[in-house]
Order: sequence, then structure tokens, then C-alpha cells
Amino acid sequence: MTRRAIYPGSFDPLTNGHLDIIERGLKLFDELIVAVLVNQEKKGLFPFDERLTMLREAIPSPQVRIDQFQGLLVDYAQKTQATAIVRGIRAISDYEYELQMALMNRRLAPHIETVFLMAGEAYSYVSSRLVKEVFQLGGSITGLVPPIVEERMRQKLDKK
Amino acid sequence: MTRRAIYPGSFDPLTNGHLDIIERGLKLFDELIVAVLVNQEKKGLFPFDERLTMLREAIPSPQVRIDQFQGLLVDYAQKTQATAIVRGIRAISDYEYELQMALMNRRLAPHIETVFLMAGEAYSYVSSRLVKEVFQLGGSITGLVPPIVEERMRQKLDKK
Amino acid sequence: MTRRAIYPGSFDPLTNGHLDIIERGLKLFDELIVAVLVNQEKKGLFPFDERLTMLREAIPSPQVRIDQFQGLLVDYAQKTQATAIVRGIRAISDYEYELQMALMNRRLAPHIETVFLMAGEAYSYVSSRLVKEVFQLGGSITGLVPPIVEERMRQKLDKK
Amino acid sequence: MTRRAIYPGSFDPLTNGHLDIIERGLKLFDELIVAVLVNQEKKGLFPFDERLTMLREAIPSPQVRIDQFQGLLVDYAQKTQATAIVRGIRAISDYEYELQMALMNRRLAPHIETVFLMAGEAYSYVSSRLVKEVFQLGGSITGLVPPIVEERMRQKLDKK
Amino acid sequence: MTRRAIYPGSFDPLTNGHLDIIERGLKLFDELIVAVLVNQEKKGLFPFDERLTMLREAIPSPQVRIDQFQGLLVDYAQKTQATAIVRGIRAISDYEYELQMALMNRRLAPHIETVFLMAGEAYSYVSSRLVKEVFQLGGSITGLVPPIVEERMRQKLDKK
Amino acid sequence: MTRRAIYPGSFDPLTNGHLDIIERGLKLFDELIVAVLVNQEKKGLFPFDERLTMLREAIPSPQVRIDQFQGLLVDYAQKTQATAIVRGIRAISDYEYELQMALMNRRLAPHIETVFLMAGEAYSYVSSRLVKEVFQLGGSITGLVPPIVEERMRQKLDKK
Repeated sequence: MTRRAIYPGSFDPLTNGHLDIIERGLKLFDELIVAVLVNQEKKGLFPFDERLTMLREAIPSPQVRIDQFQGLLVDYAQKTQATAIVRGIRAISDYEYELQMALMNRRLAPHIETVFLMAGEAYSYVSSRLVKEVFQLGGSITGLVPPIVEERMRQKLDKK
Repeated sequence: MTRRAIYPGSFDPLTNGHLDIIERGLKLFDELIVAVLVNQEKKGLFPFDERLTMLREAIPSPQVRIDQFQGLLVDYAQKTQATAIVRGIRAISDYEYELQMALMNRRLAPHIETVFLMAGEAYSYVSSRLVKEVFQLGGSITGLVPPIVEERMRQKLDKK
Repeated sequence: MTRRAIYPGSFDPLTNGHLDIIERGLKLFDELIVAVLVNQEKKGLFPFDERLTMLREAIPSPQVRIDQFQGLLVDYAQKTQATAIVRGIRAISDYEYELQMALMNRRLAPHIETVFLMAGEAYSYVSSRLVKEVFQLGGSITGLVPPIVEERMRQKLDKK
Repeated sequence: MTRRAIYPGSFDPLTNGHLDIIERGLKLFDELIVAVLVNQEKKGLFPFDERLTMLREAIPSPQVRIDQFQGLLVDYAQKTQATAIVRGIRAISDYEYELQMALMNRRLAPHIETVFLMAGEAYSYVSSRLVKEVFQLGGSITGLVPPIVEERMRQKLDKK
Repeated sequence: MTRRAIYPGSFDPLTNGHLDIIERGLKLFDELIVAVLVNQEKKGLFPFDERLTMLREAIPSPQVRIDQFQGLLVDYAQKTQATAIVRGIRAISDYEYELQMALMNRRLAPHIETVFLMAGEAYSYVSSRLVKEVFQLGGSITGLVPPIVEERMRQKLDKK
Repeated sequence: MTRRAIYPGSFDPLTNGHLDIIERGLKLFDELIVAVLVNQEKKGLFPFDERLTMLREAIPSPQVRIDQFQGLLVDYAQKTQATAIVRGIRAISDYEYELQMALMNRRLAPHIETVFLMAGEAYSYVSSRLVKEVFQLGGSITGLVPPIVEERMRQKLDKK
């Protein structure tokens, strides 16, 4: 039986904290679907297409499938025959929200399990939001995001 | 002496978690005023009138009065001769904000006490916000809100 | 109907933080039973008799009954026809433990409600344990406990 | 490749909260080793043998192996060729301690991943410690532990 | 060597909680720069000029310099030769965010240390946001902000 | 004016997390007194003398004074003319306890300020307790404590 899990998120942009969780998830599951949540109301820094492109370039593993989804996460999980949802936890505040979502998802689809993995301590403060903030104020984000993401962020800034 | 308490909120919409707190509050007080905060800047999903209507339909108890208020909660409490404010707590994050509000309210009106009741564990993840989110993405909310609310949410969705 | 609540604890010794919660509880209930948990295995600083004596001296209100109990709190609540258990909360760590106890008590006796009251911010750091620690190291506890308790603590120290 | 995980604990005694985590873990791994930590300094209510017996009786699944271990958990994990450690989380306080242990274990054995699963909300307050406390004070623990454990706890109490 | 620290913030408006932290900071450092973050996208209640004026009027100490900054806080700290960033902490939620920012700032400028001071317990619920909310609903903020701030808030309200 | 701070603790044993805080503290104060709390009731792994010896060997800086104290920390701070107490914070649970102690100390000696510094994220899980536990179970603690401490721990284990 193939064990398939979904790692959902906005990935706007992908950080090294995300990559850390993906690597950990790959040790536990045969296949990991990294799924970008397409939310028409929240545009973000990168368009959805570009987020998918960056994910594909940064994660060449054949065990990882890059995809996008809309609607309920558990519906997408059922459609893709995933048995688990992978979530990285960094801090207490994350954790509270994550528990609430996990309990709701369990109610909506009891057979899909949410699995929490702990990001490496080096990534405990790395969030997409903070990375964007620091970058836009001129700070270095080298080491916080994959080189490919850093490059595209620089291009974005130059265009402005 | 009649012991009267206020249970304030947005109730956009009323959930079964709210009903749970109302039932618990009724064991402690002679009268409970369920008071919808009318906030002109934050429109929400249901207009204020409809929230009041749903509350009235879902809570037929003669011990409960449905009302609305504007301005400071403690001013409204004094006007209605309530001696307590009832708040349900679910999670740590709630609790932090609630403590801050309770301390401020105590400063503004020292004789009005804030009383924290714990929602049933089955409602630990049921918030108005999450209920709306799940519903709008096509998930079932049966059992999370009273049937009357579910029906009106369906009508709202059909109109779109 | 008389509304009766229990405020249980070790009260080893009674602090001004406890008194603050008792005063708040009295605004909500007709009668408050301050009940000392008699735990034969955990002796503490003051013998149970002396804790009761100090409570009686410090709280002369006719609305308050001082008592002791053994066994399950909810059994004692049922025996005394109390409808609520009052608990003061100070900090997050308190709160976690309190929630767990409240859920267990609700399971054991669903009709008895646990009511959380917030101690005044001046008492946010006043616990019986810390008061004893500070006193034994020679620090002043004036203002943290009732004068009657301070006096008896001094007598205890002199005897040593 | 067989995916094997360890679910370590004291299991003094096994609760329905533990069983809930075991069932969830079985959906993710091919084999789950439920491993009782043998700690000579902390005797507990049930002797280690009896804890193992109760686990064997309560969990007849061929996918589960019941075992005991001493020393470092990660050494035991390596010896048994497990790739993951399963931990159930209930509350924030658990979580803090769990994170600390997980980071230490990761340092000691980087290739073993700690996987956090969320117990059902019905078990959010069920701990071995609280179950023992309630039982010893005469409260009912039916529904909190498997029938086999309840029976043995009754026998223990009768002997006293 | 002059020890210089920065106390950054929005100060929209200055509260007595801020003043409390400033006084504590002055006991530790030779000079404190109270620095208003100029964020063009988030206008706030008071224009940046007026915030600076209020700070200058409320803090006449020669040890304090009032200033504004844009961009990365650590860049501003380096430009002003500050060795530390002072942050007041009130509650757990603050603390989480503060830790994340402090770790990011440490990464960006390892030699600048973030120093956390605890506001007096009387200010545990006083935030600029809550002060504005209460005032706009007609509540008294006397004692929560310096008289000079209260006066200007009244003027602002009268103009509307 | 010489700025002197106290960094109190049990240091049983000194860890690299402690050293990290000491280095950070030295950037802020002219002199740091690392003070071992002598608690006759809690013996610990290393005798007090040996803890002082290890501290002296591991911290050769002339800016640091190694000392011991008994009784109230604030009394010791006054005797040594320290103006601040330095505390490292790692996690939320630490923080709660630390806040309570800091508020009590402020009450006992208002002019002494408690300063919280954040340990490096690499030390977020390093506590004396966990280091001892891991070592006694045969795990490696290289990198978690100074070499001098590791050596002495090995000697201790060999003697057993």
C-alpha cells in the first residue's frame, strides 16, 4: 500500500522551514503532495503559478508531487487518496490554530489523520510573512529561503 | 434579588458552542441577556437583525432576553443592571484576550464581574469564523450550529 | 432558590489572592463554602485545624461557610447542594490544569458547573507556595496575606 | 519497506486516550511498538509486568508489538529499527515538554523522527495520573480506561 | 563606554505602560532612544509628527532621545550605535511574537541584544489598541495614558 | 557608574545554554555575578563547591565573578550592589514561572530590575535536568555542556 500524505500551505514563498518539513515527511510517507492553496481573495506576493514553479524547481524529488487545490482540504485529500495531512509546528500560537483545524478536519473526514512534525530549531522563527517583511526592508534572507526563491524575490523588488 | 448576567458576542452566526455556554450560564443566573454587539464597521455575514432573529428562534427560554448593544459593554451592563459578564473559553489564545478585556472592564466598572465558563470539549474547535469558512467551502456544519442557522446559511449561499 | 458555590483549596495558608476571589464569588452566589481539602498524605505548613481557624478569623461574612472535605470534590458539592465550583485563575499554567480538572469534574457530575474568576492583577503572582518560600527566606509578606496569617507564620518561625 | 514506529510511555495504567493514539498511529505505520519505559526509581501503581499484560489483553492487533525498554529511547528505536516515535498531545503543557524531548532525541539520533498525533477531544483531560486520582477517591473511571484495566484497578483497591 | 539602547514602537499613542518600560530601561542603560516606527502603509490615529511631539512632552529626561526610523530596526540600531533593543512584555501572546522577532533580529545583527523587561502588573492589560477602543466608545482612559495624550485624544474626538 | 548584574541559578551542572546567556549579559553589564543558589535541602548531582569550581574553570573572564548565596535573591543583590537580575528564557513554561518570580522580587526590592535574555535557538532544549538525564542513560552530551563539565560528569559516573 502506498502511503500518501498532503503538505498544504500558501508557500508565498517557499522557505527553508518548509523544505525541512518536506524532508522529514518523506521519511514517513511514500509520497508527499505539496499542495498550494489557491485562495482567490488573498493574492499574496507571488501568483499561484509562480509558487508552483518555485516548488518544482526547489524540490526535484520523484517522491514529491507539486499540486494546487481549492475548497476543503479534506475533500482534496480524499480525491488524491491521501491518508494524512502533514503540518509543521514552530510555536505555541501555531499549535493552537493547528489543533483547531485538525479537530475540524477530523470531524469532516475522520479517516484522514493530521500529523504534526517539528521544524528544526534553526527554523523556529522562519515564516513566509517574516521573510517577506525582512526582504522588503532590505534585510538579507540568504539561508532562510532556497536560492531560487531569493533570486525571484530580488527580481520582484527590482521591477517595482 | 434577581441575578442578571450578559453574554455578549457577535453571534455571526450563533453556534452550538454558544448555546452550550448559554445553557451553562442559565444554571448560575436568574436571567441571561444574550447581547449582539452592533459594530457598524464590521458588517459580517448576517445583518444584525437576522442575528437577533436567529437567536430568538433558537433560544425560546423565558429566562433569556435577546438584545443588541453599542458602545462600551460595561455601560450596557450598568444600564441593564447586570452584575456579571459571561464569557466562554475554548483555548489559550481566547483566554489571553479575554483576560485583557476582563481587566479593562473591571477597571471601567469594578462592581461588574467577568465569569468564565468552559465550553464542552465537543465545541473546543467550533468558532463562528471556522463554521463560516467550512460552510463556504462546501463542508457540512450539521451539529455545529442549530438547524435554524444551518438553513439560513444555505439560503444565503443559494442567493449568491 | 439559594445559589450555593464551593471554593475549594489547600489554603496553606490563606492569601489575599484567595480573599479577593472570595469577595468576587460573593457577588455572584448567595452562599460560598470555602472548603479545605484534607489530604492526609500532604501535611503542609499549617495543620488542617489551624487553616480552618485562620479562615474563620479572616472571613467573618455570614454568607461564607468554612468547611473541610475529603474524597471527590464533586461528591462534596452534591452533599452540600452546591451548584457551582469557584476557581481563581492567575496564569496560563494554572489555567491548563484547571481546565483538565473542570472537564473531569463535569464528567463525574455534569450538573455542577465550574466558574472561573480572575484574581485582581495585584495578586497575579501571589501563591501560597511562593508566600511560604519568601517568608522562610526572611522576606516581608505584609500585604500578601491577611494580618492574622502573617502573625501565625511569625509564631511558627519563632518556634523553630 | 516496513514502516515501524514506537509509542513509548509509562502506561500506568493504559487509558482510552492511549488506545486512541495507538489506533491513529496504526493508520500511518505498518507496525507499532508500544514500549513501556522501565524506570526502577519510579515504581508506580502497577508493576511493569502487569502493565505489559494489560497492554497485551487490551490491544490484540497483530500490527502492534508490546515491549519494554530501559535507557535512551533513541537507542531502543535504533535497536528495533523504528523510524519514528509517536507521541500524543493533549494540551499546551504537554506540548512544551514534548518539543524539548523531541529536539533532544533528534540531536541524539537525527534520522528518527518524532510524530505528534492529536488525541480525540473526548480524551483531552484523560491522563493516567488523573484516572488514578479519581479512582482512589471513589470516582467512576468507566469509559476512561479499557474494561480490563478498570477491573484490575478494582482488584488493587480491594486488596488494600 | 556609553550604553545606548533603542525602545522601538508605534506609540499610537504613548501609554503609561510604555512610560513604565522607559523608566525601567533608564536604570539599565545610559541612553535610551525611543524610536517611532514610520510605516507609510499603516497610518494610525495620530500622524507620526504628533506621536513624536507627545513623546517629547511626556518624557523630558535628558537621558532619552526621541526619534523616528524606517526600514530594518537592526540597521537603525547600528546607525545609532545602540547595543540593545528594549522590549516590554505583558502576556504570552506578546512573548511569542517578540521571541520570533528577536531571533530574526539576532540573525540579521548578532551583536545587538534584545532585552525583555516586564511591565508593571498594573499595565498588564494596557495596549495602545485597547486604549483607543475604550476611548472611542466613551470610556475613561485617565491613568492609562499621560495627561498630555488624553488631552490630545479628546481634541481628536471633538473635531470629528 | 559600574553596572553590575546577577545571574543566579543552580548550575547543576553549568550548560552551554548558561554560557550563552552569560556572554549576552556581558555585552549589557560591566560586571556579572554568576551566583550559585545554595539550597541545603536540594543536594543535586554536584556538591556546591564543585559547581563553583566548574564555573570558575569554564568562565575565565575578569568581568565575571563566581559566587554563592543563600536566602532571598534580592537581599543578595542589594548586598552586592547589583542593579539587575539576568534570567535566560527558553520556553513558555519557563517564562510563566519567571514572570511570577520577577513580580515577587520587584515587590520585595522595587529598584532591582529583572532582565530577560533569550538563549540561542540551539539551546532551546538544553536544561541541566535533561542533560543529566541523557547522560545517565548513556547519551552523548558533547556540545551541550563545556568540556570541563562533561569530563567531571564522566568521573562521577565511573565512581558509581
